[in-house]
Amino acid sequence: MQMSNRISAFQCSPIRRLVPYAREAAEKGIHVIHLNIGQPDIKTPKEALEAIHNYGEDIIEYGRSEGEVELRRGLVKYYKKYGITVDEDDIMITTGGSEAIQFIFMTLCDPYDEFIIPEPYYTNVATFANIAMVTLRPVTSSPDDNFALPSIEEFEKRINKKTMGILLCSPNNPTGHVYTRGELKALLELCKKHDIFLVVDEVYREFCYDGKTFTSILSFPEYSDRIICIDSFSKRFSMCGARVGAIVTHNREVLDSALKLAQARLCPPAVEQVAATAALTAPDEYVENVRAEYEHRRNVLISSMQKIPGVRCSLPKGAFYFVADLPVDDAEKFDIFMLRDFSYQGCTVMFAPADGFYVTPGLGHTEARFAYVLNEKELLMAAKCLEEGLKVYRRDVMGIKE
Amino acid sequence: MQMSNRISAFQCSPIRRLVPYAREAAEKGIHVIHLNIGQPDIKTPKEALEAIHNYGEDIIEYGRSEGEVELRRGLVKYYKKYGITVDEDDIMITTGGSEAIQFIFMTLCDPYDEFIIPEPYYTNVATFANIAMVTLRPVTSSPDDNFALPSIEEFEKRINKKTMGILLCSPNNPTGHVYTRGELKALLELCKKHDIFLVVDEVYREFCYDGKTFTSILSFPEYSDRIICIDSFSKRFSMCGARVGAIVTHNREVLDSALKLAQARLCPPAVEQVAATAALTAPDEYVENVRAEYEHRRNVLISSMQKIPGVRCSLPKGAFYFVADLPVDDAEKFDIFMLRDFSYQGCTVMFAPADGFYVTPGLGHTEARFAYVLNEKELLMAAKCLEEGLKVYRRDVMGIKE
Repeated sequence: MQMSNRISAFQCSPIRRLVPYAREAAEKGIHVIHLNIGQPDIKTPKEALEAIHNYGEDIIEYGRSEGEVELRRGLVKYYKKYGITVDEDDIMITTGGSEAIQFIFMTLCDPYDEFIIPEPYYTNVATFANIAMVTLRPVTSSPDDNFALPSIEEFEKRINKKTMGILLCSPNNPTGHVYTRGELKALLELCKKHDIFLVVDEVYREFCYDGKTFTSILSFPEYSDRIICIDSFSKRFSMCGARVGAIVTHNREVLDSALKLAQARLCPPAVEQVAATAALTAPDEYVENVRAEYEHRRNVLISSMQKIPGVRCSLPKGAFYFVADLPVDDAEKFDIFMLRDFSYQGCTVMFAPADGFYVTPGLGHTEARFAYVLNEKELLMAAKCLEEGLKVYRRDVMGIKE
Repeated sequence: MQMSNRISAFQCSPIRRLVPYAREAAEKGIHVIHLNIGQPDIKTPKEALEAIHNYGEDIIEYGRSEGEVELRRGLVKYYKKYGITVDEDDIMITTGGSEAIQFIFMTLCDPYDEFIIPEPYYTNVATFANIAMVTLRPVTSSPDDNFALPSIEEFEKRINKKTMGILLCSPNNPTGHVYTRGELKALLELCKKHDIFLVVDEVYREFCYDGKTFTSILSFPEYSDRIICIDSFSKRFSMCGARVGAIVTHNREVLDSALKLAQARLCPPAVEQVAATAALTAPDEYVENVRAEYEHRRNVLISSMQKIPGVRCSLPKGAFYFVADLPVDDAEKFDIFMLRDFSYQGCTVMFAPADGFYVTPGLGHTEARFAYVLNEKELLMAAKCLEEGLKVYRRDVMGIKE
């Protein structure tokens, strides 16, 4: 019995596929510093944890397919703080931002329809596109200009009759780029011209650094019919395991259609929605402190890595990732080496090889995504491990005499 | 801007699509008795609720994509009580049984591949099949023999090169049929002969009545490579909103392939998995009491409905649903009438029109699925409402003089 051809062709998550090597290292007693995944060590707001401890129902019942009213009302207030006007019926709660992206592909696209996406991009989108049989058309952004938006002409070149929309992530995972108001406006004009959607994943909305202001796609009401925002509680409130996300759009036809998918899977998780509703009542300082902490961590890891000979990376403006070019033949081979064959003072480091973050074959083989969600001490040790690991790998595996 | 053709073609859930009428009735102050959905009024085990109250983490972290080890180990012990031997690596935790079915379709089938399914069937499977572009080939079971398994010849007739498996639900939603060891063995022989999978949704495993013994598909080790069991905590532990389910199979290639999908969506909900792990420690009496209560409720509703002139329904052997044939022109029209135009002593009843539970067009138009998950008093009132509603509907809407 064979598995389907499509599942065989799906890629394993480049963020998670090396996990067996990390487990083996851990079993040998090596402390693996996980820069491969955006799992923060910052505490979930106490409001959310208390809501779990005080969960008052005695039956964990099915909820509404579109998500609980209290949670959607809480989000309306939350967006209002950013000057964004939506009402509760503009919001559908999803099981994580992941489900939101899947619902949008299924709702907007028939098989072989296309979405344009700047690469490197959030790699799990590839699987969601594969599930929906949507073709991703990449526009390559470059480390040379800090992964800014490629020219509008490059996007327009890729638009054809099968193009249903453009998918952005801002602040960007994996590059850290924060799209400017001008960039978004230009894309919206392009979308209007060709009558397609602009879908923006804003799950890192609060994490913008160096005083940079974030522009939400929801702040362009004149294009509201073609705008879809993907959101999630995972990063903002350090509750990644809760799996609570959202689709936000003024286009009711999109939500009405997506509701068919939502009804089939019945409802998002009930207890976690209670936690998410409470997280929204955390004081503004919670998110502000988290933002400041990530800015600090970014500075720590970037400045340490920039000192490593041959490593190229520049200061990201948002989210909590960056893509670095490494002085190796193959970033994945080097990653496996770090986990299987190397340790420094009992530690090693795991990162996400970046080739899986590109649609275009052949790109990103010497690049890797690093998440700076751990504390300063861990980040400094991770940079040291990388520096020492690179020396050994280049000498012993690549045979370079320096 | 158009939605996709496929989403436009997807059906709205027949279990949930009449909800707006029910809301309107409720807003008018009418008490709507929900027999349309399997939302029990039985309490979640206190062990599960206590685990939520005592949730000890201060970060709700990403978990393992395949589900938490403690939960999978708990399930190993749980199956052992039924004489079933699996180990933790034979189990993948999913976000509800819904996600499990989706993962299986994607993993086993390419677009236009086929699955055979007895109808009436659990209707949300239609949407999961549509998402995966899998064609469902129905074999119609009949109320005349209490929806028993149609002949093996009927299944075999529908097998072709594109057939990847057969999907059963036992005890069956919506018919209440419990497949016998002989029926399962015959299907497994057929699957072996044609080298296809047998997938069995056993989420109602404990709910078998009249002393009937349940046979799990996992108790046929000689066919283990082609056997996949779908499971869920929703009904067994009255925790439908938790969204914790599982795929259980000895076929590691299936789980390894499905893991690609699991990794892309990151992990199942974290807090709910803690609750599910604790639910497994509830004493056996919990499930036994629930079973006995449902058996009683079944008897109450069936005997009341059998007394209503023109209603045809027979005693289901398991789960907590049955399909009844109603003396109306169209069960959905009658359902809307009950919600919009009728009440009896301030009450009305909602049920699920059964045409959506058939793949074959034209079947089930006068049938409806009833869930008997509410308490005796509600069920008696529901039957009374139906009886009175039928009188009025037949007289005023259908114009029948009796």
